[in-house]
Amino acid sequence: MFVLGIDPGLTRCGFGALERSASKDVPYRALVAGVIETDADESLERRLGIVSTEIELLLDEVSPAVVVVERIFFQSNVRTAISVAQVSGVVIAAAARRGLEVCQFTPNEVKEAVVGHGGASKSQVQAMITRLCGLSEPPKPPDVADALALAACYLTSERLRAAIGAAAR
Amino acid sequence: MFVLGIDPGLTRCGFGALERSASKDVPYRALVAGVIETDADESLERRLGIVSTEIELLLDEVSPAVVVVERIFFQSNVRTAISVAQVSGVVIAAAARRGLEVCQFTPNEVKEAVVGHGGASKSQVQAMITRLCGLSEPPKPPDVADALALAACYLTSERLRAAIGAAAR
Repeated sequence: MFVLGIDPGLTRCGFGALERSASKDVPYRALVAGVIETDADESLERRLGIVSTEIELLLDEVSPAVVVVERIFFQSNVRTAISVAQVSGVVIAAAARRGLEVCQFTPNEVKEAVVGHGGASKSQVQAMITRLCGLSEPPKPPDVADALALAACYLTSERLRAAIGAAAR
Repeated sequence: MFVLGIDPGLTRCGFGALERSASKDVPYRALVAGVIETDADESLERRLGIVSTEIELLLDEVSPAVVVVERIFFQSNVRTAISVAQVSGVVIAAAARRGLEVCQFTPNEVKEAVVGHGGASKSQVQAMITRLCGLSEPPKPPDVADALALAACYLTSERLRAAIGAAAR
């Protein structure tokens, strides 16, 4: 079962698909990871269309059971935030239309689950993802590591969430 | 040639398609107009999936040449703004993937083009749309009037934009 993490963005949209491995030392195996990039000289409309097409191709290729998308907040750059929200809408809608499970985590939830504390640095997340997936070097650009971390957050917290769900019933 | 206006929203997404008529008194003819509604009790993911599916069906039905979407700003309710931006992303990407012309106007641009001044009230826009399209009563809910006004804004400003474009060349 593959979990596809997506770090939404218009200039660079990171993606990475993980599944559990049989190894305890290297618990996750990465299937694909990379970035969808669009040219800032193109119109917003065309760029959203390109990201949408690439996301559909990615969903075809990976056939994930779950899609995990970074949850959007608007405390920072408002101009960027609009396009990030637009891309996240495109990704969530594409996954939901296919009947896939869709999950959203905040950056702090991801750091908490992957590194162990919500205030972890970018490089700590990258180092942990490199280790958990048995990669020879940290994934680049950082958007790729963030996408893999979203998928890892889902897998890491899956049993905890199941236990909480069972206790609540 | 139909122009489809979309007033993006998760709870209510207004839509309305117009074409030019032969009449000077009633310059536009409405093909379809209505709202896509989703249940606030459903998950965001499911709601975005539903809006996405309905938008695709609408594009199939109307076969517009142009899709006009309200341009998003984030001065107001941030929580709502995120979902509005997500829906606008879904609409723009769906239209762009079909190779349609996609246009965005701010609410002030729409009021300026349809009523004649950017500070026009909602009811002035509704009254003008009712007259321009020869409707027997104002379209309801207001999201429908807003969507028709977006389409009317495109048609009203089309010749002006063409003239400006020609002058610039």
